[in-house]
Amino acid sequence: MDRLKKKIIEEGKVLSSSVIKVDAFLNHQLDPVLMKEIGEEFAKRFKELGITKVLTLESSGIAPAQMTALSLGVPAIFARKKKSLTMKDHLYTSKVHSFTKQETNEISISKDFMTDDDHVLILDDFLANGQAAKGLIDLVEQSGASIAGVAIIIEKGFQDGGRLLRRQGIKVESLAILSSLEDRTITFETQGVSS
Amino acid sequence: MDRLKKKIIEEGKVLSSSVIKVDAFLNHQLDPVLMKEIGEEFAKRFKELGITKVLTLESSGIAPAQMTALSLGVPAIFARKKKSLTMKDHLYTSKVHSFTKQETNEISISKDFMTDDDHVLILDDFLANGQAAKGLIDLVEQSGASIAGVAIIIEKGFQDGGRLLRRQGIKVESLAILSSLEDRTITFETQGVSS
Repeated sequence: MDRLKKKIIEEGKVLSSSVIKVDAFLNHQLDPVLMKEIGEEFAKRFKELGITKVLTLESSGIAPAQMTALSLGVPAIFARKKKSLTMKDHLYTSKVHSFTKQETNEISISKDFMTDDDHVLILDDFLANGQAAKGLIDLVEQSGASIAGVAIIIEKGFQDGGRLLRRQGIKVESLAILSSLEDRTITFETQGVSS
Repeated sequence: MDRLKKKIIEEGKVLSSSVIKVDAFLNHQLDPVLMKEIGEEFAKRFKELGITKVLTLESSGIAPAQMTALSLGVPAIFARKKKSLTMKDHLYTSKVHSFTKQETNEISISKDFMTDDDHVLILDDFLANGQAAKGLIDLVEQSGASIAGVAIIIEKGFQDGGRLLRRQGIKVESLAILSSLEDRTITFETQGVSS
């Protein structure tokens, strides 16, 4: 997606050789038109797979998951990072360590909204070492549902997550794959990313 | 909005005389078509006001804020409930107490995304005692921006928030106003809510 890559280059802030901040359009402020295009692109790439639900993790996955679910004509669910008072029992839970935030969160979804009839598209904003995706896959597997694929907006190609998921035979579609953030320079992989 | 009220009646779960759980379509699982209609309805009600930004609070406000911002043709921003590693300084912050979750969160937005040129629509899923709205208004005022209004999906009319905001002269538009949840029965106010 050329528009996404352009945004990353123009508005992304490289904080280190492994961290890029895209708060201007994805992680804090949202560009709603870009979110819509992202949703349409994911729907195009996964539309033949019989998806029944889009699963993401709060908070940054919610807007693109909403748009993808809207395009696919299915519900979205966002896993929560901790339990709320109105959502105590009846949960599938897993643990996700975030290296960026240096914390481990318990993530959970209600058993009400995923069953073994579901075929689930997992969606997240970033894929780095794959911890969040692994946690989401764990939730889906606990429910008995199947994984249709993993939809990623920005993949850090220089980290292991994408390779590990693809080796497991999971269809991973990343709209932009960063090959490097060294020297504060944003470089994209040119293979494997259709525009 | 009749479709929203129908959803609340059919899928809402009354947990007490003051708490209703709408995890089936708004707070955990999302009905993307309903979110789209909510966004269009808010855009219709606020479109003449020269809004430049939609501000909400993670996580449940994000999907309807995305759809409202898309309809209005402006960016959305979601305030974060705690600071992340990539967002440490350069923030406007306020405090919000949640009676449902029995916790006080510091909420914040980056100074980069709100200036005194902005005219801001505040959007939230619920309005009860108005704590979240007050916190969001505080963030907007710190930035020097002005408040265009407050967009609420479900207002608890039996709590004080809506009255307090309207008394301050703030335009508050709620898509469904609950007059009571007593006896596990959902009752809507009929005045002040256009369909």
